[in-house]
Parts: sequence; structure tokens; C-alpha cells
Amino acid sequence: MGASVFFYVTYVLCLCLGLLCVLCVICWSSRWRGGFSWDGSALQFNWHPVLMVSGLVVLYGIAVVVYRVPFTWKQRKHTWKLVHAGLMLLSLLLSVLGLCAVFDFHRSFHIPNLYSLHSWVGICTVVMFAFQWVLGLAGFLFPYPPLWIRSALKPVHIWIGKAVLILSLTSCISGINEKLFLTLNGITGEPYNSLPVETKFANSLGILIVAFGLMVFGILSKNKWRRPETDNESVHLLLNEEGV
Amino acid sequence: MGASVFFYVTYVLCLCLGLLCVLCVICWSSRWRGGFSWDGSALQFNWHPVLMVSGLVVLYGIAVVVYRVPFTWKQRKHTWKLVHAGLMLLSLLLSVLGLCAVFDFHRSFHIPNLYSLHSWVGICTVVMFAFQWVLGLAGFLFPYPPLWIRSALKPVHIWIGKAVLILSLTSCISGINEKLFLTLNGITGEPYNSLPVETKFANSLGILIVAFGLMVFGILSKNKWRRPETDNESVHLLLNEEGV
Repeated sequence: MGASVFFYVTYVLCLCLGLLCVLCVICWSSRWRGGFSWDGSALQFNWHPVLMVSGLVVLYGIAVVVYRVPFTWKQRKHTWKLVHAGLMLLSLLLSVLGLCAVFDFHRSFHIPNLYSLHSWVGICTVVMFAFQWVLGLAGFLFPYPPLWIRSALKPVHIWIGKAVLILSLTSCISGINEKLFLTLNGITGEPYNSLPVETKFANSLGILIVAFGLMVFGILSKNKWRRPETDNESVHLLLNEEGV
Repeated sequence: MGASVFFYVTYVLCLCLGLLCVLCVICWSSRWRGGFSWDGSALQFNWHPVLMVSGLVVLYGIAVVVYRVPFTWKQRKHTWKLVHAGLMLLSLLLSVLGLCAVFDFHRSFHIPNLYSLHSWVGICTVVMFAFQWVLGLAGFLFPYPPLWIRSALKPVHIWIGKAVLILSLTSCISGINEKLFLTLNGITGEPYNSLPVETKFANSLGILIVAFGLMVFGILSKNKWRRPETDNESVHLLLNEEGV
């Protein structure tokens, strides 16, 4: 099997896994947590896991590996830098909206913000992501930074990109775990430790999220799948990132 | 500043951060959770976070970057493969002991095992780690595998190594979060959401753990810090891993 075919098989599997994560988190919120609204109620909270999993994990992961897709290699890198930045911006906006959902819910129920470790790691993730996006825009999309700055920025951009993905996986897993402990406390239904159907479903969602993240890391770690340097863009590529 | 000096500054910072994580998790268990024993009580549970943070995160992280230390580069790689495998085995044994601590505690208090997402991710981490250790031993330490098998195994070994580190960070953060929700429930003291001193301390421990993990990833991602191929070991190095 050629490298390209192997890539596309892995890539399609990764996309399917990402789609499955989004469908499962929507299903969890709809089937077991009452669905959605934007009125400060528990139904507004339900947007939080959906937006974080869709934005901060799945869309982020897809944006990270966009340079690895072979059919983009014959096209101008600048076009795909715009796609990368655009997808990242959408991912960031969904994440910020996800934070708004939980802050609104907390305000309505007089629950303090940012007390749990999940929230500490989560807010660090989004702040680091926002910093990374601005750094990427200023360093790689704007034309004026001197070449030595771009060269120095590239490994930092790649490292922060991976760090955000690790933090987003950590935030999601601790968040799902926290939600299940807070809601399945045995007061209004079966407790978490009796492993009701919701628990099995949400735990499986957590495993799917981790599997998606590790698959993205797998795609990133394969050197053969990096965008090759062609003659007419070698100088350009030398100075720019190859995907986070 | 030379690459080597920059490496050692980063490496010493990483070791200090790792040591700080171990000291903090011992302090948390001693100061706020009553200390240690091995009698099936809650004090036996306290070994669980200490052994997991020390073994599965800190010792694992140190073992992962052992090939990056420049002073080892003039010595035989096989010696450092033995050090790498030895540290990994110790890390694995501490992790298994950490699992025994929590399973014993659960048995004493008739608490079901493996119901939370934290436990699902945690058990996957240790199983994957054990598989990786056996794979590494058979593939890279034993002399008989054919060269093509070693070449094929190398990227898999590196990817699984990173995956185990990501999973161990995820497990630790979700575990600390879970423990705080289960113990600081407002029944016997201040609730978690009032952010008592223990919470601030344990949340900070979580942030330190994540910072340590990201620093290990930073060291791994810097190409200049890889063990160089010298003439007399180039064939050997071509076929073997350069650290996870």
C-alpha cells in the first residue's frame, strides 16, 4: 500500500472518529441531559461539552493535520495557511462560546467559576490557544516578520500546538468525569458507581475522544506524511511551519 | 548560549519540576488526607496518587528523555537502552503498585472498581504501557529481531511512548479532580467550590504535572537535542529508537 493510500485510510478513519465524537457528545446531552437551550438553565450548560469537544478537540485536530493531506501539496502553501488559520479561528470561537455557556449557567445558579482542576486546566488551554492563534497570525500569515523571527517561531508554534491538543484532551476527560460525578450522585437516579447506561455511554465517549487525539498525534509523528519542499517554495517552506 | 547548555538548563528545570510534583503529591496525601498505610483503609488509597504521579508521570518522563542527555552520546547506546528499559520497568512497577493500592481500598469499602472515566483511561494507560515495555524489550533489547522489523517498530514505539505520556497526564488530572469532588463534598468540611487551601494546593499540583509533561514533550520535539549518529554506530542507530 502506497504512503498516500495509507495516509488517506488513516485520515478518513480519523475524520470518522472525530465525527463520532461530535455525534456522541450531542447524543449524551440530548438523550440523558435534557437537550439544549440558551437561558442560563442546565440546558445551557449542555452546550459546554458539545462546543468544547467539537471545537477544541475535533475541529482543532482536523486543522492541525491540514498540511498533511497530499492533494494540498501541489497547491500554494499560503492558501492552506489561510485554511489552517480559518479552521483554528472557528475552533477558538466555538471554545469561547463553550466557556460562555458554562459561565452563564454558573451565574444563574450562583455556582462559583473556576474552582475545579478541570476548569483551571481548561482555562489554561483556551488562553494558550488564543495566544497561539495570535502568534501564528503575526508570525506566519502577516508578510512583515523578518525571516530569522519566523525560523525561531516555527518550533515554538509546533510545540504550543501539540501542547494545546494535550491540554484539550486532558480538559475534556476531566470534564466528562466531573459532570458524571456531579449529576449521577444517587440522589435523583442511579449513582455513577453502579455504572448505568449513561455512564457507559459517556465513558465510551471519553475513550473515543482520547483515541481521536492519539490518532492526530500519530498522523503528525509520521515524517513521510509531511508536506514535501518543492523547488519553487523551498525558501518559503524553510521559513514556515509544516502544520502544528 | 550553546545547544548543550540550553538543553541542560531545560533538563534541570524539568527534573526540578518533576521533583516538585512528587513532593507536592506526598504533601497533599500527608497534610490533608491523613498519611499512608497499607491496610485497606483510606490511608492505603493515599499511595495511589503518590505512586501514579511518581511512577507513571515523573519517572516515565525522565526515562523518555534519557537519550537526549548529551553526556551519554559518547557512550555505547546499548548501555543507555538498558538504563531506559530499567527506568521504564521501575515506572511500570510503581504504577502497578499504585493500582493495587486503589483496588485493595475499594475491596475493603465494597466500592466497585473501574466505573469512572478516570479509571477507564487509567487502566488503558497502564495496559498500553505494559504492552509497550514488552514490545521495546523484544524489539530493541533482544538481539534476534531482523533489521526490517526493528525499522518498522521504531515509529510505533515512539508513537506509543508519547501516547502513554498523554494518557498518564489525562489520567492524573482527571484523578485529582475526581478525588477532590469525592472528598470535599461539604459533608465533613468545606466544599470543593469554596476553594479551600487543599483545593488550591491540589489544583496547583495538577498544573505542575501538566507543566512537567509539556516540558518533556518540548525536549522530545527539539531535533537538535536528538542523539547524533556517529560513524561507528550509524548502522546501529539507523535501526534503533532515539528515545521515545
